[in-house]
Amino acid sequence: MVKVLASAPGKVTLFGEHAVVYGYPAIVTAINKRVYVEAELRNDNEIKINAQDLRVPGLIVSIGEGEVVVTTDYGRSLAAMSYLSKAIEVTSKFLNERKGVNLVVTSEMPVGAGLGTSAAVSVATIAAYATCLGHELSSEVIAQLGWQVEKEVQGIASPMDTTISALGGTLKLWYEGTTVHKTPLALSSELPLVISYVEREKTTKEMVAKVKELRNRHSELVDEIMKSIGFVTNKAEQALLKNDLSEVGLLMNVNHGLLDALGVSTRRLNELVYLARSSGALGSKLTGAGGGGATISLVQNSKAELVLNVLSMFSLMSFKAVINTEGVKVKVLAK
Amino acid sequence: MVKVLASAPGKVTLFGEHAVVYGYPAIVTAINKRVYVEAELRNDNEIKINAQDLRVPGLIVSIGEGEVVVTTDYGRSLAAMSYLSKAIEVTSKFLNERKGVNLVVTSEMPVGAGLGTSAAVSVATIAAYATCLGHELSSEVIAQLGWQVEKEVQGIASPMDTTISALGGTLKLWYEGTTVHKTPLALSSELPLVISYVEREKTTKEMVAKVKELRNRHSELVDEIMKSIGFVTNKAEQALLKNDLSEVGLLMNVNHGLLDALGVSTRRLNELVYLARSSGALGSKLTGAGGGGATISLVQNSKAELVLNVLSMFSLMSFKAVINTEGVKVKVLAK
Repeated sequence: MVKVLASAPGKVTLFGEHAVVYGYPAIVTAINKRVYVEAELRNDNEIKINAQDLRVPGLIVSIGEGEVVVTTDYGRSLAAMSYLSKAIEVTSKFLNERKGVNLVVTSEMPVGAGLGTSAAVSVATIAAYATCLGHELSSEVIAQLGWQVEKEVQGIASPMDTTISALGGTLKLWYEGTTVHKTPLALSSELPLVISYVEREKTTKEMVAKVKELRNRHSELVDEIMKSIGFVTNKAEQALLKNDLSEVGLLMNVNHGLLDALGVSTRRLNELVYLARSSGALGSKLTGAGGGGATISLVQNSKAELVLNVLSMFSLMSFKAVINTEGVKVKVLAK
Repeated sequence: MVKVLASAPGKVTLFGEHAVVYGYPAIVTAINKRVYVEAELRNDNEIKINAQDLRVPGLIVSIGEGEVVVTTDYGRSLAAMSYLSKAIEVTSKFLNERKGVNLVVTSEMPVGAGLGTSAAVSVATIAAYATCLGHELSSEVIAQLGWQVEKEVQGIASPMDTTISALGGTLKLWYEGTTVHKTPLALSSELPLVISYVEREKTTKEMVAKVKELRNRHSELVDEIMKSIGFVTNKAEQALLKNDLSEVGLLMNVNHGLLDALGVSTRRLNELVYLARSSGALGSKLTGAGGGGATISLVQNSKAELVLNVLSMFSLMSFKAVINTEGVKVKVLAK
């Protein structure tokens, strides 16, 4: 039977989260933590999903047409299931073709840490499934379909995560109305980060709403802060292209403070950020929506172990990562 | 013998520190923690200083003309001595009159916490000494002479601390070149704060230099952040006049984030600020130059004890204070 392995990376937002909602650019980058989806065609029409390592081992979900049977219920990981089944549905519709398939999903990232796991799941599933059906989709098309999956599951979604997961590398992107503009940044190398994760206290939706509320009360002020974040992001683009890491680090620190001013940091995120800096990181900031979730710290290799060890003591999970990595990849295992 | 007791308040900066250096307004306020200077005329020309409670008991300094004899050397408190002797010198020169005097100084505030203790020492000494000599100086004149004392001791000084200590209340002030503009804010009441203090890691001079260096690297960006702080301060002025405490608190939080973006916060200051907020403070921020020093948290009375207890555990010293209090006061104890 036809068997395909696809993988897609998670992402971090290096600069510009929240400001991107208000028309300013953000810089997002693919990380070397990936979601793997192995797809094998079946003889029937069933979709069977085995989520090996979405933080829970052995979760098995069967999806007939329109019907979902969950062998074991594991909360948040279950949510990830809906991206898988929606990815199959969206891809089938796009290709106008449907076949049963066994999907085995593994992830190198925690779910819900703001690292774009759901986008990576969607992207890898689309790529694996389409390849099983004999179609080679471009990364751009996969990104589009991935966005559609996220929109249909979440009601509303940014194309950011699915775009960077499909294309890989590092992108500067900004919205003009509903249009997304993007410029790939040709970084000279992969950069070393430490990613550190604490529990989310609030959802992305709540954090975006919180900023919006602040803006309703103080539009001029919040617009100034957004403008400042826009400046930081544009300066950071130049620094990244010049591989000027100490400058990138400094700008991460400034960006973090501006996010704090918008009210999206927390005590624990600040703690991680300041511990990283005093342990030798070149810069550190929260990444993503805030209210808990992940921080990123830019480290030189000589400092990486120390920063990692310190952050590990104060976080739920910390790990080294490199950024500016490959997008979606597909490998045919059997024809 | 003629004997006079003068007192002058410490201060906190509510909004706009650092931005004030770049032409934006700051809001400073007198607190109910005072420095007391008791002055008694002597028969000779000697100045004898007894600093009862500048964090060290029993320090005795004798100052003949041009000669200083220190009975016990206690570092930082010694520095406070130079404000006393300089205040005598400046006042003598202004009044063109000099007499020997015994000075007993006590302080309700820690020295070096950014609460303007040295300004309060200068202001109270000027008032006490001038009154001993039979002169009644206006608060404005005392403020001027106090500034001169600070300038002569420190080389360079802002008139902010001496002005608010002499005049009391709450002032919005800003610089235009070397001119200081000030507007008293007629607040309807004294507001309750918790002031919490951790060790300074850096001096004010170093922190101002750090911001200047960031501005040299990223002028446009830092100017935007300063502009944002300016907005916050102007909004805060309105909120203070309306006695809208939840709005004042919110703006304190925003101001803190912007100071963090400028690189003047520290891990420990952030910790205090976030602990205060999660213990029920309406808002919390670092106050003054940063790099350690003090934080201020706006609290409703019902929450004051909890916030105070929590902050006490994580700081060198925490205490309740009210703001918008009286300026310099003089009382003749004996004629």
